[in-house]
Amino acid sequence: MTVEAVADRYPTRTGPPVRAFPRRDPVVHSSESGPLDPDELRRFGRDGYLVREQLLDETTVDRLRDEAERMAADPELAASDRVVGEPGGEAVRSVFEVHRLSSLMAQVVADERLAGAARQVLGSAVYVHQSRVNRKPGFVGQGFAWHSDFETWHAEDGMPAPRAVSIAVALTPNYVHNGSLLIIPGSHRTFVPTVGTTPEGHYRSSLRNQEIGVPDDASLAALVEAGGGVAVVTGEPGSAVLFDCNAMHGSSNNITPYPRTNLFIVYNSVANTLAAPFAAPAPRPEFIASRTATPVV
Amino acid sequence: MTVEAVADRYPTRTGPPVRAFPRRDPVVHSSESGPLDPDELRRFGRDGYLVREQLLDETTVDRLRDEAERMAADPELAASDRVVGEPGGEAVRSVFEVHRLSSLMAQVVADERLAGAARQVLGSAVYVHQSRVNRKPGFVGQGFAWHSDFETWHAEDGMPAPRAVSIAVALTPNYVHNGSLLIIPGSHRTFVPTVGTTPEGHYRSSLRNQEIGVPDDASLAALVEAGGGVAVVTGEPGSAVLFDCNAMHGSSNNITPYPRTNLFIVYNSVANTLAAPFAAPAPRPEFIASRTATPVV
Repeated sequence: MTVEAVADRYPTRTGPPVRAFPRRDPVVHSSESGPLDPDELRRFGRDGYLVREQLLDETTVDRLRDEAERMAADPELAASDRVVGEPGGEAVRSVFEVHRLSSLMAQVVADERLAGAARQVLGSAVYVHQSRVNRKPGFVGQGFAWHSDFETWHAEDGMPAPRAVSIAVALTPNYVHNGSLLIIPGSHRTFVPTVGTTPEGHYRSSLRNQEIGVPDDASLAALVEAGGGVAVVTGEPGSAVLFDCNAMHGSSNNITPYPRTNLFIVYNSVANTLAAPFAAPAPRPEFIASRTATPVV
Repeated sequence: MTVEAVADRYPTRTGPPVRAFPRRDPVVHSSESGPLDPDELRRFGRDGYLVREQLLDETTVDRLRDEAERMAADPELAASDRVVGEPGGEAVRSVFEVHRLSSLMAQVVADERLAGAARQVLGSAVYVHQSRVNRKPGFVGQGFAWHSDFETWHAEDGMPAPRAVSIAVALTPNYVHNGSLLIIPGSHRTFVPTVGTTPEGHYRSSLRNQEIGVPDDASLAALVEAGGGVAVVTGEPGSAVLFDCNAMHGSSNNITPYPRTNLFIVYNSVANTLAAPFAAPAPRPEFIASRTATPVV
């Protein structure tokens, strides 16, 4: 048995200076038919994200939200690593690998409207790299600093290329004022390496409050300038946003009384399975980054 | 010489339980003509705030922004108490009493479009209770927790009644995503006492990050429910929002590259000058709360 070295085409977590460079891989890998029409695929390729209104019906969304709240309130789960709290607080921020905790969520993950869209974009069979419920409770929900998910998944999980897409399904209204997704249009076409070294067990703190793997302000300002601004992704429950794994995104905190809860699913191409981390001492746990590439059928 | 006791009609900073109660004073004190038309006065009375687009011209706004940036960069000023930094950071958050630091800002404070509107609402001559530049720098600008300014001014400055109005003039664009003002429509008609005791020198920390004088979540949720939601006040440079001193407001943090800088002026009625603090060991400094009630002419 031999171990094949995987070339690092997206070096990151290095010393300064940072030099952003153009993405070395396609965004849309197929032009086959599926849930997304050609214009949607084109817009996804251009902007790095795409919003679908009313993807899931109200009854399904209500049930998903109930499941999410049940998980967030489960003391046994809370004692596990799968549950991440708000920085400096008690409220539940994220619950990981929810499609293994809930048969309803597993159904949604396999739903053709979601998995089929991922297959279309990625041009191959897909598997679930990560699933989670992202709560952002009213009053106390904290934001997320700007980041490219791919930068972390490459550095800490060993994902070779940006051939993965995320779908966030709104389970509560995502308003402009309750910490909804901010995304920089077109930013997915540039890779911004970050400065620093990933400490051991970094995920334990980074999922609350990321400090390593954060892009520099000058690169962010350049991306916003090039993208013509910052987009705010709002939507009613049941709406969804599909976004490229290298799209630069973040969010503000939520001081409103309105909780902002999303179901978040990451589909990775089966042709892009995880190698050893490119810039971390050890891989993150399976519940954050699956090494079992079972295709979604 | 006798000291007249001023009755405390808005008791706050007490022990729990909190019982919110209806405002005991009018909102709009006059129906005289002035910069605001009758419909605007009516809306201000109903909502507790009013937006004016293009109140100041572009040249004036450019000059004001330059002045604000000059102040924020002034090392001598930075060493004084008038300048407040971002929580946990170096960036300048607020500069106080700016109408005494800049003749241009003094002119704007006396401008009939601002002072005249305040006189109309308050039904008397007015003086400047407080002026400040509120910066919220790009990337690092932190939000403000929900609060009623009057609650603090009453507790810590001895302002007897909610007979003051604030005007915030946008010096940079106030977008939905860069930490613009969030306000609860109609909340100015309810007084929400807060729990706790004001420590000595509280203003030194509270202007960065307020922890005492913060309303409870249940009262906030009730105000939002009654008000039909949370309003986001956006505007181009030169636009302004006039809001009642008891309007419940706050803001999110600013992770975008776009700085959000506002000139903030508080006009108080000359019939509502400061007494001893109602719930604090000592009055705050003059540069935060003027005890010199010189009418603006």
